[in-house]
Amino acid sequence: MVEIQNKSIISRDENFADWYTSIVKKADLVDYTNMKGSMIIRPYGYAIWENMQSVLDREFKRYGHENLQMPMFIPESLLNVEKEHVEGFAPEVAWVTHGGSEELEERICVRPTSETLFCEHYKKIIKSYRDLPKLYNQWCTIVRWEKTTRPFLRTREILWQEGHTMHASAKEAIEETLRMLHVYEDFQRNYLALPVIVGEKTDKEKFAGAEKTYTIEAMMYDGVALQNGTSHYFGTHFAKAFGIEFLNKENKLETPYQTSWGVTTRMIGSIIMTHGDDRGLVLPPKIAPIKVIIIPIGNTSKNEELKSACDNIKEELLKNDITVKVDETDKTPGFKFAEAEVKGYPIRIEVGPRDLERGIVTLVRRDTLEKIEVTLENVIDTIPTLLDQIQKDMYDRALARRNTMLYTANNYEEMTKIAKEKPGFILVNWCGNVDCENKVKEDLGLKSRCIPLEGHEPDGPCAICGSDAKCKLYFGKQY
Amino acid sequence: MVEIQNKSIISRDENFADWYTSIVKKADLVDYTNMKGSMIIRPYGYAIWENMQSVLDREFKRYGHENLQMPMFIPESLLNVEKEHVEGFAPEVAWVTHGGSEELEERICVRPTSETLFCEHYKKIIKSYRDLPKLYNQWCTIVRWEKTTRPFLRTREILWQEGHTMHASAKEAIEETLRMLHVYEDFQRNYLALPVIVGEKTDKEKFAGAEKTYTIEAMMYDGVALQNGTSHYFGTHFAKAFGIEFLNKENKLETPYQTSWGVTTRMIGSIIMTHGDDRGLVLPPKIAPIKVIIIPIGNTSKNEELKSACDNIKEELLKNDITVKVDETDKTPGFKFAEAEVKGYPIRIEVGPRDLERGIVTLVRRDTLEKIEVTLENVIDTIPTLLDQIQKDMYDRALARRNTMLYTANNYEEMTKIAKEKPGFILVNWCGNVDCENKVKEDLGLKSRCIPLEGHEPDGPCAICGSDAKCKLYFGKQY
Repeated sequence: MVEIQNKSIISRDENFADWYTSIVKKADLVDYTNMKGSMIIRPYGYAIWENMQSVLDREFKRYGHENLQMPMFIPESLLNVEKEHVEGFAPEVAWVTHGGSEELEERICVRPTSETLFCEHYKKIIKSYRDLPKLYNQWCTIVRWEKTTRPFLRTREILWQEGHTMHASAKEAIEETLRMLHVYEDFQRNYLALPVIVGEKTDKEKFAGAEKTYTIEAMMYDGVALQNGTSHYFGTHFAKAFGIEFLNKENKLETPYQTSWGVTTRMIGSIIMTHGDDRGLVLPPKIAPIKVIIIPIGNTSKNEELKSACDNIKEELLKNDITVKVDETDKTPGFKFAEAEVKGYPIRIEVGPRDLERGIVTLVRRDTLEKIEVTLENVIDTIPTLLDQIQKDMYDRALARRNTMLYTANNYEEMTKIAKEKPGFILVNWCGNVDCENKVKEDLGLKSRCIPLEGHEPDGPCAICGSDAKCKLYFGKQY
Repeated sequence: MVEIQNKSIISRDENFADWYTSIVKKADLVDYTNMKGSMIIRPYGYAIWENMQSVLDREFKRYGHENLQMPMFIPESLLNVEKEHVEGFAPEVAWVTHGGSEELEERICVRPTSETLFCEHYKKIIKSYRDLPKLYNQWCTIVRWEKTTRPFLRTREILWQEGHTMHASAKEAIEETLRMLHVYEDFQRNYLALPVIVGEKTDKEKFAGAEKTYTIEAMMYDGVALQNGTSHYFGTHFAKAFGIEFLNKENKLETPYQTSWGVTTRMIGSIIMTHGDDRGLVLPPKIAPIKVIIIPIGNTSKNEELKSACDNIKEELLKNDITVKVDETDKTPGFKFAEAEVKGYPIRIEVGPRDLERGIVTLVRRDTLEKIEVTLENVIDTIPTLLDQIQKDMYDRALARRNTMLYTANNYEEMTKIAKEKPGFILVNWCGNVDCENKVKEDLGLKSRCIPLEGHEPDGPCAICGSDAKCKLYFGKQY
């Protein structure tokens, strides 16, 4: 049964795109609807998102952010207030033109992001320095009418959170932008086991309307980049367009400084594409909805000893706040193992009658498939340590693999050679000119990823045009 | 300052509608946008919703329900599958006709409810009795294009949860329908302090496509009804329309039985309109985001003893899981008291330097405005008991008031007299005929509320037409 089950997942190295699609379906993460680009996030996928929400929401609140809920609709005239913003988003919004049988006087779009709504609100509620900072966040869905779609990575409807803050000074707002970038970074490193690269987007790649956009760039198993979160500093760009002003301590009118930042369910895609293997999903323990699956070898309804052994382990794990499930279905053990592997539960415990006689059970690590025999007494002590070890090892392995796909190129010849032969990111010295970015996109199909926050001092001329370099810049293919 | 602050809230007995609108604004629960019928749920209002979500979500999961996320869009052809359903909802949906600059081949609506989406999914994933029951829930927003709107009560976009379940037998599905009705009932009684009436809707008033609709009917301070949650039993109505079948244990194809149930942010409206008074909001302790507000009488930055007294109480309360805030703004005490009253914090603690010398502080109950002096040592012991007492008293007062507005009428003359003179609900014997419901609506402006679950046996002829009665039925005006 194991073989049959596993054969239905396409090999990761043969066809990464099909492998990805088969995993999201086989692991019951998503289902499609009859409408193109639209997906159902099934309970197992949604439970991962709930875990992500719970950790991030706690972090947001720890820094004083408050949740609220903005409307999902933006009237066309409101979207149009900030010029760069509307040019960036208008081509990909869904337009509502009718309410019931009546045509609307003004068409409205489903929010592609909510800067304009927040600004309209801020204008009403920010009057004095006493009203600042405003530290807001909302969990919601947004819509972007994409042409090509893939589950979690690029969908027409996106689950996300969007933080929107206003500050009395540029300094505070920039600090906030970077603080939230690092909240994302820490979360992705520590919970999702992703060795992400953080940096700043070039002017060409920044958010429509932002002064600076910072980004979290994750590299997938196949060397392709996934932009896994962004944090924007707007300066007074939107605030001026919306006429938002406050009386400062000297009783003078001033324009406040703004940020926004967001992550989406795309992070689920990045877990799959970083850690998954040919047997299915591999979930980092800290984000796995079920950390341990107990599989009885035999029928628990006919074997009381077997049942009570499984139940005891389950109860003890629950007491230690470790989520756990016992698979008591009437499937064969082989089928249950394969299913546990597809679902990516970090540890499976095999409980067999003969092992029980010897007082032992077998733990199987999902990440390495290593089998570990432990005595019944030691199960509960072993599991937390093993979960930590798996979490750490998953990060280390992802880091090691990523490092083998980070390249530096000193000139365009080197850059071209690497781009044509090897997947991954290429770090080059860059002059700061968008023409060079455009050339790389056209010649090599690579987009700039980011100017790394650390180590971005240039050490040679621009690898593309040969003129003086301003900074280092990562290039890579992207999802 | 108190007087000035309070004068800006319109008196509840003078103009209940304006009073309501002023409370939702003054207490910072909502703000309006420039788009009609659209509201922003501000952080204080959203925190109430988060508390509601947290209690209900725990209850749903306790009964085995899993959260998932369906798309927000329904293609017109999918909405059209079930005839009664589309007739009920099509007149009030928002239609998306364009994605970016392209006209869609088929227009899609923003979900007004998700039965059709769930059915499309169930058809794919339910094959065998082993796949049942399916116990799903989602937290999301829906859109209904209402003509007249009021914050929380009737808005074009609604935050809610919708449970959707499928069962192998009618018996199980009916049990689920009633189980979830009682989850809502218990929640509203025990957390929201609402003395709700539960019952069954008449055929005229039931959900478009349901076999039975059960309802939670709350009566507001002004005697007007608010439908505060519904639980529907669909039988095989939708399942047949969508062709959903499963192999039962005897290996024969059978149609599964379905339910759905939902509550919305309207519950926040019901709290305001049941418990609020001329000073503002009054929140039941169990749902209040901040249970205790500490107000120092004086400047904490200049009086160390005062500051440390406030901080100590705060720390002790937090240790006891009681949410608390210290108001250290530079406003006058009177202004702070008034603001605390507007926000409806269940208890305020006034900490004054002279009181501190005597070793006491003053607790003020928001619901009764009663002042209680306690010694500093007794504060932490007193608060939890007092919060419980407030919760209980709020329920009892709401119940007593509601009972004064429950009437019975034996004939149409009595019914007419009550309806014209007194606000509230009228319980009558009813023949079961929709003509009688229509007549009452036309003559008296009352709609049927529900056939009460308990005590619905008739004890006389139909109060409207005089023919044999089938059951008792509540009538009342509704929001």
